[in-house]
Parts: sequence; C-alpha cells; structure tokens
Amino acid sequence: MIFRQLFEKETSTYTYLLAQESSRQALIIDPVKTEIDKYLQLIKELNLTLKYAMDTHVHADHVTALGLLRDKIGCQTIMGDHSQVACVSKKVKDDEIIDCDGLKIKAIYTPGHTDDSYSYVMDDRVFTGDALLIRGTGRTDFQNGDPKAAYHSLFDKLLKLPDDTLVYPAHDYKGWTVSTIGEEKAFNPRLQVKNEQEYVEIMNNLHLPNPKMMDVAVSSNLTCGFEK
Amino acid sequence: MIFRQLFEKETSTYTYLLAQESSRQALIIDPVKTEIDKYLQLIKELNLTLKYAMDTHVHADHVTALGLLRDKIGCQTIMGDHSQVACVSKKVKDDEIIDCDGLKIKAIYTPGHTDDSYSYVMDDRVFTGDALLIRGTGRTDFQNGDPKAAYHSLFDKLLKLPDDTLVYPAHDYKGWTVSTIGEEKAFNPRLQVKNEQEYVEIMNNLHLPNPKMMDVAVSSNLTCGFEK
Repeated sequence: MIFRQLFEKETSTYTYLLAQESSRQALIIDPVKTEIDKYLQLIKELNLTLKYAMDTHVHADHVTALGLLRDKIGCQTIMGDHSQVACVSKKVKDDEIIDCDGLKIKAIYTPGHTDDSYSYVMDDRVFTGDALLIRGTGRTDFQNGDPKAAYHSLFDKLLKLPDDTLVYPAHDYKGWTVSTIGEEKAFNPRLQVKNEQEYVEIMNNLHLPNPKMMDVAVSSNLTCGFEK
Repeated sequence: MIFRQLFEKETSTYTYLLAQESSRQALIIDPVKTEIDKYLQLIKELNLTLKYAMDTHVHADHVTALGLLRDKIGCQTIMGDHSQVACVSKKVKDDEIIDCDGLKIKAIYTPGHTDDSYSYVMDDRVFTGDALLIRGTGRTDFQNGDPKAAYHSLFDKLLKLPDDTLVYPAHDYKGWTVSTIGEEKAFNPRLQVKNEQEYVEIMNNLHLPNPKMMDVAVSSNLTCGFEK
C-alpha cells in the first residue's frame, strides 16, 4: 500500500492519501481545500487515480477539498450516513466496507465530537478524525456534539480495537504524527475516567474558544467546500 | 521496530525516534531542544531506554537537544567524524554501522549542505538530514557548504540507494512527511540537472536570507546545545 500523511500547518490538520500499489487506485481522507495543488501534484507524480475523497465529519476549522477534488478530477465523495452534506456522492453506513480496488476500509459511526463523525478502520490502523486524538479527544460543545455519545464511541468502539492498531487522527497540535490504541488507553489523560459521568464532566468544563474559521468552515463544508 | 516521526512547527523540523521492539533500546535523530519534554514523555510512556541521540549535522535553524538528553538521561551522543562538535560521545566514520541492540543504521558521509553532514541509512529508509529534502535539497551557502560536494553526495551516494527507499528528511516546509528515492530522482526539481556544473549554478543563485536563528543555533550547537 502507498501511504502518505500530509500536514496543513495553519489548522494543524492531517490528511491521508492511500493507494493500492498495483492498480494505483487511491483515496484521500480529510483533504483541506487550500492544499489542493499539493494533492494534485502528488497524485500525478505517484501516477495515481483518485477514486474517493472522504471526510470523517463536517470540519469546523478548515474548508474541505471534497467538492473541488470531485469537480477537478471526477472522484467520488464519501461521508457517513448521518452527514447533512447533500452534495456527497456516497453516504456510508456504520460498519460498511469501502473497497478501493482491494484496499478495504470499514466506516464506523463514532459520534460525539459531532453527530456525523465516522472513523475509518483498516487491518492495522484507524483514521479517527476528531473522535480520538493523540493524548486528547475532540471537543463536544458544538455541531450537535455530545460528550455521552463521545464516551461510548471511544470506550465501546475505538478502544475495543486491538492495542497495536495505529491511530491516525485528523489533527495534532504538538507535532506528534501517530499513536496506537494501547498507548491512548494507557496515557490519554481524557481516557483515564471511571465512567460516562466523569467523561461528561471533563468535556463540559473545557470552556474552549470557538475555532477561528468555524463560521466560514461549517457553512462551506455543508456544501462540500463551496460558498452557498 | 517502533518508529515515530515528530514535527517541530516553529522551524519545520522532523525528529525521529526509533526503537528495537523487544529490548526497548532506542535512538533519536535530530532532536530539538525546545521539544525535550515531549521526547522524555514519549520515551517514558513507550517504556524505552534512549541509548543514542544523533544529529545529522550542526543545524543552523534550531538548537539541538543532544547535550540536554545526554545530561538528563545519560544517553550517548553521536555525530559524524567530520563534526567540529567536541562534546559528542562518539563520532562515526563514513560507512560505519551504529548498532542499537540489533537495530542497525549505517552512517554515510554526505557533505554539501555543510561539511559535517551525514545521512543515516537503514534497510528500507534513509534519514537524509538537509542533504536531500522532499522535492528540494539543503542550501550550500554557509557552514562550509559546497554545491559540488552536495552534487556528489546526492548523485553518487543517496540516489544510488534503491528506488523504494523511504526518504525521511530533517525538514519539510510544505507538510509532506516522507518520500522515496525513486520519487526524488523523478520529481525533485533540483535533481533534474545534467551535470555538476548545472547543479552548482542552481545552488549559487538561490540568494536565500540566513535562517532566523542561525547565529544562536550554530554557536550553541557546537557545544551540544548549550551556551558557550
């Protein structure tokens, strides 16, 4: 498998480009609109055909490249079934397999950060969006976020994956690029709670400012990254 | 093998932590002094023993953590034989193998960006420092840099590695995390030259400003990251 992790510095966003090595069929997860020229360059240089562009959820901190990638190179756009984004080509259900020419990814519904958050699971790795970050978790105070739902997405789904599963989040603000489920279970400070109630209390007392780009990003991302 | 790529945003520096999985003996390449708390946290959480802290060369854009890591946890510090840094524990020669409990890394002398630049080669990957960047190469206009030497380090050494060798540089400013030798041969604009003379002309006409931290960094790095 060809695998590239790409970093957008302004919003500390990670984007992932994956491709089947022989057929060169590719998919991209959480692409950022301002980075599109780099994606197109890399796709061309690696001789890939982009089949799918997927978002884990409607992002509040950057504008998605889904629509622009679809328009420029004719890929399909994928989001989870709970998404309110009307312009996606294909909505995947909880536990549905996305097959990119043999490269298989299971979509799992992991709400909490938002009510439309999905994670994408492969044999040895999981793309967690903002549901699970490295030594952190996504905030739950806007976009129908819900700390109870987040608790269950984390403890009943993501942390049930094998301990050596690599964790690739949608963001990291400290310069860390990857973790594992075992590491997050042991050392993620938000996951050292005894029960749902303790997690809800932590999340309801974060008092974070809204993301800088929130108003522009959410509205734009509901239409695949274009102005309404 | 445990492998972590870590990013320092201010100077866009990549640091690499590698460890032998069973013995947990580890080494770190190009650590940044301001990030030391994160390294110590990760080393502790992953239950590693840091045996070696290595720099590819005397950096001009950030202060090394070599001295501080040595003082805090008693690791050995390694640089290449051509280094003027007096305080390193061990200087490795061209083609010398560094053995971290079975995890073997070959040091190769790749001058040009500086006269003390080494790259560190493993079976499937190479840590190139600033000798070879992703779609770029390190400047050659200070610290005894030499575009002719750089040309030969690139064309006679690094580009002779197998095409599928992963390239992990000391910096990337575009958010790219990894490349391959084959990709750089084909698409690195600096490497599309016909001969040494063409490369020298490109490098002598870059007219780049000095790195912001150069005066502080070089002087400090000559003493392993401490003030003189």
